[in-house]
Amino acid sequence: MFRVGYYQFRLLFGKPEQNCKKIITVLDSVESDLLVLPELALSGYYFANKEEALHFSEDPNNSKNIDSICELAAKKNMHLVLGFVERQQNNCFNSAALIGPNGIEHIYRKIHLFNEEKFIFAEGDIPFKVNTINGVKLGLIVCFDWVFPETIRMLAMQGAQVICQPANLVLTYCQQTMIARSIENRVFIITCNRYGQEIRPQGALKFTGRSQIVAPGGNILHRSAAQREAIYLCDIDPKDANNKFITKYNHLFNDRRVEFYK
Amino acid sequence: MFRVGYYQFRLLFGKPEQNCKKIITVLDSVESDLLVLPELALSGYYFANKEEALHFSEDPNNSKNIDSICELAAKKNMHLVLGFVERQQNNCFNSAALIGPNGIEHIYRKIHLFNEEKFIFAEGDIPFKVNTINGVKLGLIVCFDWVFPETIRMLAMQGAQVICQPANLVLTYCQQTMIARSIENRVFIITCNRYGQEIRPQGALKFTGRSQIVAPGGNILHRSAAQREAIYLCDIDPKDANNKFITKYNHLFNDRRVEFYK
Repeated sequence: MFRVGYYQFRLLFGKPEQNCKKIITVLDSVESDLLVLPELALSGYYFANKEEALHFSEDPNNSKNIDSICELAAKKNMHLVLGFVERQQNNCFNSAALIGPNGIEHIYRKIHLFNEEKFIFAEGDIPFKVNTINGVKLGLIVCFDWVFPETIRMLAMQGAQVICQPANLVLTYCQQTMIARSIENRVFIITCNRYGQEIRPQGALKFTGRSQIVAPGGNILHRSAAQREAIYLCDIDPKDANNKFITKYNHLFNDRRVEFYK
Repeated sequence: MFRVGYYQFRLLFGKPEQNCKKIITVLDSVESDLLVLPELALSGYYFANKEEALHFSEDPNNSKNIDSICELAAKKNMHLVLGFVERQQNNCFNSAALIGPNGIEHIYRKIHLFNEEKFIFAEGDIPFKVNTINGVKLGLIVCFDWVFPETIRMLAMQGAQVICQPANLVLTYCQQTMIARSIENRVFIITCNRYGQEIRPQGALKFTGRSQIVAPGGNILHRSAAQREAIYLCDIDPKDANNKFITKYNHLFNDRRVEFYK
């Protein structure tokens, strides 16, 4: 068995050190193989402009905050998926790092940017990739990637058993849609959202919580409350995602009739 | 405005004339621009083998039953989507006909066959096609096509505003998933299921009703009961499906990053 979970919390805009400390303090008492954190879980979300995002960005090769998350992963012998602003020279990406006991194993850069994120972040420029940890195949996406069925399709067809989705959702369509994604691809999906508000000069955003874990076939293993801190952990058998037969004679991938999808 | 609807009913296995007469009698008092009927709505579903399906099949160019549905469409000046067993020489398809006042306008042959249907029907061999009636763009699918997101994606990207889905559903995953389909493609989806049982020598099937109409964005306009005859009609504005912006800066089709979907 493989223990997975998420930590839904209220983070403070523009306080990376405080948010990082909170994560480390809370997770110090948690035992899990994999734990998913929200999107942009160090910086907060609602940047006024690109300069502000750069100001709160992290260079993964030179970041005290990320180093301390790596130390946590090493100390607890677990993997974490952390959303953060990734700086690359004068650009930044809305990224998710897969961090294990030996440090950063992969960084996914959000491929589908949401709304005004297009003025803040550069579009993800690295293909979807499956990472194997302890024999379990993980796929990373970030928040709004959910709306494009092609996203999880790509990862699932590459063998991903567990989709990890750091999120900063303001609506609840995603949670609804992830049920369909796990029916059509037979994968686990861990959606970690945050809660609380960000009140900024340019407006206010309220994040809607309701983080969830869905099992292959669309069964919701757990869904958190909307406005409450929540750590949820559960044991799954990732091999449940290997069987893509939805009936005796229907295989979700082999039955695709690609010649008609052009 | 454009009136659409469906007729959910209990049909009798192997009694095409009786089922046809029921459809014509009931719909004689219905006023709608478009009405969707279940999958295999003349013959019933659970054939023992291909020979039995052929026995209850219809040659659309020479079928009293389909002719009388065409007469109904002409008399009522409406369009119907009818599921039926389409004979072509020694093969049959699980097909849906779009029938208007001037007769059959299009026949869609189910592309993704469900379970043991693979031993009964030939796989659909004609690409997905959008048909325009009274300026409204329709896409046809049949039942199990729902599980493949590529299906409605194809039709929606060809401009379909209203997806018509004759169905013989035995579970309820489809209705759930269609909410996601209409979120990710912003189309209307009319799912017409049947209810009741078919008890055959090889086994029994219970059909689960719950026909529904979903609006762009995932709003369920109506869902019928599981085991009850139901005619449901409502006025929609098909142009609601034209706007593919899900936020000010996110277009569901233009934001696809096809270079990463390979």
